[in-house]
Amino acid sequence: MGALSNEQLLETLRWRYATKQFDPARKIPEETWKTLEQSLLLSPSSFGLQPWRFLVIKDPELRKKLHEASWKQRQIIDASDLVVFVVRTKNTADDVETYVQTVAQSHEQPSDSPRFHGLRKVILDFDRQITDAEWNARQSYVALGVLMTSAAVLGIDTCALEGIQTSRYDEILDLPAQGFTTIMVCALGYRLPGDKYATLPKVRFAHEEVIRHL
Amino acid sequence: MGALSNEQLLETLRWRYATKQFDPARKIPEETWKTLEQSLLLSPSSFGLQPWRFLVIKDPELRKKLHEASWKQRQIIDASDLVVFVVRTKNTADDVETYVQTVAQSHEQPSDSPRFHGLRKVILDFDRQITDAEWNARQSYVALGVLMTSAAVLGIDTCALEGIQTSRYDEILDLPAQGFTTIMVCALGYRLPGDKYATLPKVRFAHEEVIRHL
Repeated sequence: MGALSNEQLLETLRWRYATKQFDPARKIPEETWKTLEQSLLLSPSSFGLQPWRFLVIKDPELRKKLHEASWKQRQIIDASDLVVFVVRTKNTADDVETYVQTVAQSHEQPSDSPRFHGLRKVILDFDRQITDAEWNARQSYVALGVLMTSAAVLGIDTCALEGIQTSRYDEILDLPAQGFTTIMVCALGYRLPGDKYATLPKVRFAHEEVIRHL
Repeated sequence: MGALSNEQLLETLRWRYATKQFDPARKIPEETWKTLEQSLLLSPSSFGLQPWRFLVIKDPELRKKLHEASWKQRQIIDASDLVVFVVRTKNTADDVETYVQTVAQSHEQPSDSPRFHGLRKVILDFDRQITDAEWNARQSYVALGVLMTSAAVLGIDTCALEGIQTSRYDEILDLPAQGFTTIMVCALGYRLPGDKYATLPKVRFAHEEVIRHL
C-alpha cells in the first residue's frame, strides 16, 4: 500500500528531466526545502556509515565562486538552491567508532556488547576492493538518486552536474583540511517555461536492451 | 505541485529500511514490478549514457548460485525479486556513437549535425579523472537511489547488498565476455512481520553535522 499509484509515479519520473534553465525568480518554499534536506539525511548508505556531508550554498558570493569553478553553467546561479555533495577521503577507525557509538546510542544498547564488536569488525574488515574515497563517492550517488526522486515527487526540478572543477571546489570550500572532497553538485528549483529540454523526448535505450530477465 | 505532500514523502522515507527478512510468500504484483523496471530505465545518468544493465533474476537455480556467491545472505533467496546492477567496464567510441545515434533518432534530427559532433566531442573529451568502470559504477548508484525511493513510494521494501562476491557474480552471469561487471544487487519485496530491524530507530548523525549551510 504505497503513497503513490504506479501511474502517478511513472508520470513523476517522466516529468523529471535534467533542467537546463531554471527560473531565477522562483524559490523553493521553506517547508519543501526542509523535506529535501531530510531526504538527504535519510538516504541509505553502505553499513549506514553516512560518509558524506551535503553543503547547501546560501551565500550568493560563494555561489558566484562555484559558478566560476563550474565552467559557468547557469544552473549554479539560476537555481533556487544548490547542494554540493562531499565525502570523506578516508574512513578511519575513529570514524567507524563514531558511527558505532551513534548506533549504540540510537538503539539504547551498550557499545561494548558483542553486537558492536562484530559491527566494528565487519566494517573495518570489509574487503571493498576500492579506495575509501571511491567507496564513499559511490554512496553519495545513492543520496543523489534519492534526492532527485524525492524532488520529483514533490514537483521540484533538479539538475545534477558532474562537469565541475572539483579541485577548485575543494579549495573554495576548504575541504581538504576537513578530510573531505567534492564529488558533484545538484541544482534544485523550478524549470523556466520555455526550456526546450523539458519537452524533448527522453532518450533511452530499448527496454529489452537495458533490462534483462534471466 | 508535486504528487506527494512533504509529510507523505517523509513518512515514506522513514518507513523505508534495509530489509533483513523478506516474506518469501509475498510476490510483487506484475504492474508494480513493471513500474519499478521503468524507474530503472528512466533513471538519470551522466550525459544520459546509461552505461548499465539491470539483470532481473527469474530462474530459481540462478538465484541459488548467486545466493552462494553472496555469503548466503537470505534476502537473495527470500525477496520477491532481485536485480543485479552491472556496468560496462569501458566506454568505447562505439558505445558513444550508439548513444549519439539513439539521441538523434529520439529527437528526429540528423546525427551528422553540429549539435551531435559537439556531443560526441564533449563526451569523449570529458576529463573525469577516474576510470570508465568507476565512473559507470557511480552512475549505477544513482539508479539504485532512484529504484529504492521509487519502491518506497509504492510501498515496496528493498535491501541493497554490496557485500557480495562480484567476481563470482561476473562468472556466473558470464559478464566479462559482454564487457560488463557486477556492482551490487538490490532485493525487493515485502518485509516479514516481526523483522526486528523494521522497528529499530533509524541511525543518523545530527542534521547540523551532515547538512551544512554555507
